[in-house]
Amino acid sequence: MNYSNNNPKRVAVIGASGYGGIQSIRLLKNHPHFEISYLAGNSTVNRTWNQIFPFLPLTNNPVIKEIDLDKISQSAEFVILSLPNGVSSKITPDLLNKNLRVIDLSADYRYRSLDLWKQVYEKESESSIRKDSDLCEEATYGIPELNSENIKCSNLVACPGCFPTSCLLPLVPFLKQGLIETDGIIIDSKSGTSGGGRSSKEHLLLSEASESISPYGVIGHRHTSEIEQELSIASGVNINIQFTPHLVPMVRGLLSTIYARLRDPGLTAEDCKTVLETVYRNYNTISILPVGIYPQTKWVRYTNKALISVEVDKRNGRLVIMSVIDNLIKGQAGQAIQNLNLMSGFNHDVNLPIDTFYP
Amino acid sequence: MNYSNNNPKRVAVIGASGYGGIQSIRLLKNHPHFEISYLAGNSTVNRTWNQIFPFLPLTNNPVIKEIDLDKISQSAEFVILSLPNGVSSKITPDLLNKNLRVIDLSADYRYRSLDLWKQVYEKESESSIRKDSDLCEEATYGIPELNSENIKCSNLVACPGCFPTSCLLPLVPFLKQGLIETDGIIIDSKSGTSGGGRSSKEHLLLSEASESISPYGVIGHRHTSEIEQELSIASGVNINIQFTPHLVPMVRGLLSTIYARLRDPGLTAEDCKTVLETVYRNYNTISILPVGIYPQTKWVRYTNKALISVEVDKRNGRLVIMSVIDNLIKGQAGQAIQNLNLMSGFNHDVNLPIDTFYP
Amino acid sequence: MNYSNNNPKRVAVIGASGYGGIQSIRLLKNHPHFEISYLAGNSTVNRTWNQIFPFLPLTNNPVIKEIDLDKISQSAEFVILSLPNGVSSKITPDLLNKNLRVIDLSADYRYRSLDLWKQVYEKESESSIRKDSDLCEEATYGIPELNSENIKCSNLVACPGCFPTSCLLPLVPFLKQGLIETDGIIIDSKSGTSGGGRSSKEHLLLSEASESISPYGVIGHRHTSEIEQELSIASGVNINIQFTPHLVPMVRGLLSTIYARLRDPGLTAEDCKTVLETVYRNYNTISILPVGIYPQTKWVRYTNKALISVEVDKRNGRLVIMSVIDNLIKGQAGQAIQNLNLMSGFNHDVNLPIDTFYP
Amino acid sequence: MNYSNNNPKRVAVIGASGYGGIQSIRLLKNHPHFEISYLAGNSTVNRTWNQIFPFLPLTNNPVIKEIDLDKISQSAEFVILSLPNGVSSKITPDLLNKNLRVIDLSADYRYRSLDLWKQVYEKESESSIRKDSDLCEEATYGIPELNSENIKCSNLVACPGCFPTSCLLPLVPFLKQGLIETDGIIIDSKSGTSGGGRSSKEHLLLSEASESISPYGVIGHRHTSEIEQELSIASGVNINIQFTPHLVPMVRGLLSTIYARLRDPGLTAEDCKTVLETVYRNYNTISILPVGIYPQTKWVRYTNKALISVEVDKRNGRLVIMSVIDNLIKGQAGQAIQNLNLMSGFNHDVNLPIDTFYP
Repeated sequence: MNYSNNNPKRVAVIGASGYGGIQSIRLLKNHPHFEISYLAGNSTVNRTWNQIFPFLPLTNNPVIKEIDLDKISQSAEFVILSLPNGVSSKITPDLLNKNLRVIDLSADYRYRSLDLWKQVYEKESESSIRKDSDLCEEATYGIPELNSENIKCSNLVACPGCFPTSCLLPLVPFLKQGLIETDGIIIDSKSGTSGGGRSSKEHLLLSEASESISPYGVIGHRHTSEIEQELSIASGVNINIQFTPHLVPMVRGLLSTIYARLRDPGLTAEDCKTVLETVYRNYNTISILPVGIYPQTKWVRYTNKALISVEVDKRNGRLVIMSVIDNLIKGQAGQAIQNLNLMSGFNHDVNLPIDTFYP
Repeated sequence: MNYSNNNPKRVAVIGASGYGGIQSIRLLKNHPHFEISYLAGNSTVNRTWNQIFPFLPLTNNPVIKEIDLDKISQSAEFVILSLPNGVSSKITPDLLNKNLRVIDLSADYRYRSLDLWKQVYEKESESSIRKDSDLCEEATYGIPELNSENIKCSNLVACPGCFPTSCLLPLVPFLKQGLIETDGIIIDSKSGTSGGGRSSKEHLLLSEASESISPYGVIGHRHTSEIEQELSIASGVNINIQFTPHLVPMVRGLLSTIYARLRDPGLTAEDCKTVLETVYRNYNTISILPVGIYPQTKWVRYTNKALISVEVDKRNGRLVIMSVIDNLIKGQAGQAIQNLNLMSGFNHDVNLPIDTFYP
Repeated sequence: MNYSNNNPKRVAVIGASGYGGIQSIRLLKNHPHFEISYLAGNSTVNRTWNQIFPFLPLTNNPVIKEIDLDKISQSAEFVILSLPNGVSSKITPDLLNKNLRVIDLSADYRYRSLDLWKQVYEKESESSIRKDSDLCEEATYGIPELNSENIKCSNLVACPGCFPTSCLLPLVPFLKQGLIETDGIIIDSKSGTSGGGRSSKEHLLLSEASESISPYGVIGHRHTSEIEQELSIASGVNINIQFTPHLVPMVRGLLSTIYARLRDPGLTAEDCKTVLETVYRNYNTISILPVGIYPQTKWVRYTNKALISVEVDKRNGRLVIMSVIDNLIKGQAGQAIQNLNLMSGFNHDVNLPIDTFYP
Repeated sequence: MNYSNNNPKRVAVIGASGYGGIQSIRLLKNHPHFEISYLAGNSTVNRTWNQIFPFLPLTNNPVIKEIDLDKISQSAEFVILSLPNGVSSKITPDLLNKNLRVIDLSADYRYRSLDLWKQVYEKESESSIRKDSDLCEEATYGIPELNSENIKCSNLVACPGCFPTSCLLPLVPFLKQGLIETDGIIIDSKSGTSGGGRSSKEHLLLSEASESISPYGVIGHRHTSEIEQELSIASGVNINIQFTPHLVPMVRGLLSTIYARLRDPGLTAEDCKTVLETVYRNYNTISILPVGIYPQTKWVRYTNKALISVEVDKRNGRLVIMSVIDNLIKGQAGQAIQNLNLMSGFNHDVNLPIDTFYP
């Protein structure tokens, strides 16, 4: 690695004051190979960063600017878009035309098919006339541990949702290798409130959300179709899952408890652990826990790591997978920086936190 | 109802300072038909109640006494046992012989078969040589809304565990009526920390348990067999479920998200809602929510109520049931008092809180 | 008490879906002497109550109506106003003219002087031209345990803020009896997030407010002047306090830790305890804890009770008072219903919860 | 800086599995200049680290050993003692005799006077006959920003308690410069539960501690005397403070709200801010916030940073100081590593986290 601090690559972060933006900036702040060269926001335009975030000061105390594509293209080689669904795609085609390389945190380029996106994100598609179906096909789905070669040379990486990340990491290997039945997969996911973003919504108030757990988006949550798309690609058949997200009274963390049936009921939990370990042996960002140790979301909080545990019920050949991530890091901005590292030719894990503090 | 306050029935509470005991006493405190006539504990013997619980004073400030069966039989007609598993059964036979009527919060009489109990509660059975298999068969499984007639005339009611209560209320009607497949039932449950009791355990410290969610007892949790027993009775066939409990960073509340397959995939969520409404129409302690409204555990906190919601995925005929209770009231002491009311000839809901405070 | 359920008094609740409104309705729901005869809201107009609050259904499932003064006066004898500051005073004069008796949860009538109100609630006073300085003088400051005779015959009761309630209950007796210095009083208060109301504000999101404690409104918080007004009346001299509120990561509960200097440094904590006990001996809504037992906010959660503890530092004659309430019950709606009970000639504590559930 | 990774200094951590130990190890894990060469524990002896902490694996997976002074002295140059009060002093004299340099997290060497220690830690002193009053006098009180020159050459650094750290950082400059009155200082502190350590105590259970705030140790908490000792040294007169700690329902974080009277009531908040800024201008571990911005404990979570804000009430010349730290990092293990850095001749902040993640 010959890159020096004197010549860092320039990154623009668009949507700076939401959780995706804050996390991205936090991870770029002391990054040895990148500098934040442009910050753009919406409600915070013309305010300085340190005024808004006095606890996370940036040395040059940049002013949050408007989204001006010309200025962005003059200021940066890379753009991280942390914008609402349906908004990213309004500027991405132009950014790419200006030779910027884009890492998008929204759902706009997660679907291979623009039509499917329009169907799932119906409301957003009404206020945004998209014609970039070619970009949907070209965009790279950005799970670094499953797709690093494509990410490295991609100009448009669509970062997966937090729920899909937690589910795809353990499920894709089992489906690719044909080890589990393709029907009857049930995913029961639990997320902290920061998954709902920073905009003020009544149900995310501490007074409402704390001291309670509740399901939401039961049957038909948007991430269902995203997960199904990727599982179908991995398995080669159309996959239909049951996905139920739950809101948990904590800030961060995402746990997916996944139920599937082994094709060969003779496989043990140790066998299944080995399957995953083999696939991810080169990635310090994924660890498979010893059989019998079940992950807590706290164990990966503020890190870019996924912890996975597998268990098999010998009575019925059912595989139970437990997968935890930090929804804002590995499930969002950390994965984005991991992709940015790859796109720039660096090791995937540069400047990414791997060890949690405890408790 | 001709019973007057002047002649209340006398109740002994054994195991007064654990959560089961505190809740029972709280619910009996101003009960119009019962008086707490004997309090027994272990670590708190010889201390006065008001000294230990200055925020919940009892008028006569009783002394916590030792477990003296003779004195209990002289002081009370009913006994609520809030003792560890394996301990209840050491005194229950004697209590019954002394003509006391027993409501047991432990697992000791939840199984029809003593052998099954010994197998599931292996550790407890080692330190306790039980020969009361007859009592196991005679005991009444105490879910008031499913079994009120038997409870009324029973002398030994085994209160179900909190997880089983949340699962059996919605599942039993569907199985009894043959509406769902008997295999492939998956129960993903989430409980607050108070389900782990009041004894000091490292993993239940706020520092450890808060800001995190984690599965535990994956495959083989003790409540699995209890739920399977009751589901098998309801359906008439041996039922084998997948049950995964999770520890949620909140004090109280239990949510079970249940996945089953409809035999007739043409049934709608409205149909399924009607099934449950019809069964429970006479019970104000159970409400079925409108389709599309999903319960929060907060909605039943500090109440003796279960809230249930049903959803159907038309794509695959899967039924998703969400069921919430307060684990220490409807899932424990409230259900016990409900049983006590029935055993004494009163309405099941006397002095039981039905309405939550919010938020 | 000869009032029967057949002839309950009619109460209108205006501002039904905020926390003040929900609590009021919850406490009136099964009240033996009142019926909710009119519900009015703002954002929820024309929706039914049970649709908004499926977990707290009202038997007749009333429609939330507009604020129509004529209809209110035809429907009710009492009005509970749970409206923003500056809005209550827009309708209160008319309501009183229509012979309704008003219990106001806002700050509009807490000040004897309209000018002081305009100074403290500067922003609100700009959008609301008030000319009701006579009503400010006539209104009764509604702390039942300190002011019951006036409340009974008042037509306009201004319910104190949650912070003032927690501070005035212990401080007024010491000041009235001249036992503490009138200068140098320091109040360090801690409140749960529900004190900030139900409107969506970023800093009250679980993601922001949880896992953190912070001061706010340091020097000059609005409640400072309200507390000073009442302490000055009690002591007969102008009192100037230091008041610092803090936001605590919990839904409900308010603790005020109060520091004052004893005039007679020979007084013991037991003496100080006796002072308060004597003043409040007839009120089950206030308990003074044994010396050495310090209150937790949890001990009064969901109750209309205040718990107070006193301690004296013999080294320097400093009195430390700890006072806890539930901010939404004793600090708001519960106190309102307590006032309503008094205004109607009932015992102050009818239908008010006194015992908490624990934990 | 010529030290390379190839020749790191060796550190023994004694008391590895408590919170102090875990934090120390976490901060040493990837430290460029130190290696963990010996781990000793009590309840965890003979288990491997990775078995106990599967989420924070150490590369060589060391076995937790017994406290063997000979082996420690062969393995290390530095020892971090994370042991209960009264236990550190049992081995510290021997460790020093063996030429080890000791950083002690307990209270054993925080007092200049052994007699005072015996008085304050009465219980501990009974089971531990200490004769090391010379060491008490020689030990260095380890606040790096106030005492770096002494720390650098000390062989025994006593790390201050978490409460004292938060209070001394802002108070010492004001007292040294004679800017505030020396009497009447009131410190109202709020701490997360991890301050109570990892041992299982009922009142620290999530079920008990969450959803509640409560004072404890009112008048006479042990840290009172430690703070008074240091303030008296700074001011040159005997200082007597009022100190009240509170338990807050969160894991980490400590806020001290401090009330003092300015000698010159003409000083403004800006003036006071400048006083602190000037003293700490060379330390990135302490920031003084702009006047009007009040700190949240969350802003320093998982960092070795203190954030301080000052406010002045012009009406009465009172200074209100707000000071936040992470109690387990800046208030414990982070400060220890900061001291270790200084003792070893490195910059004080090597490998210490300064930036928090948010939220």
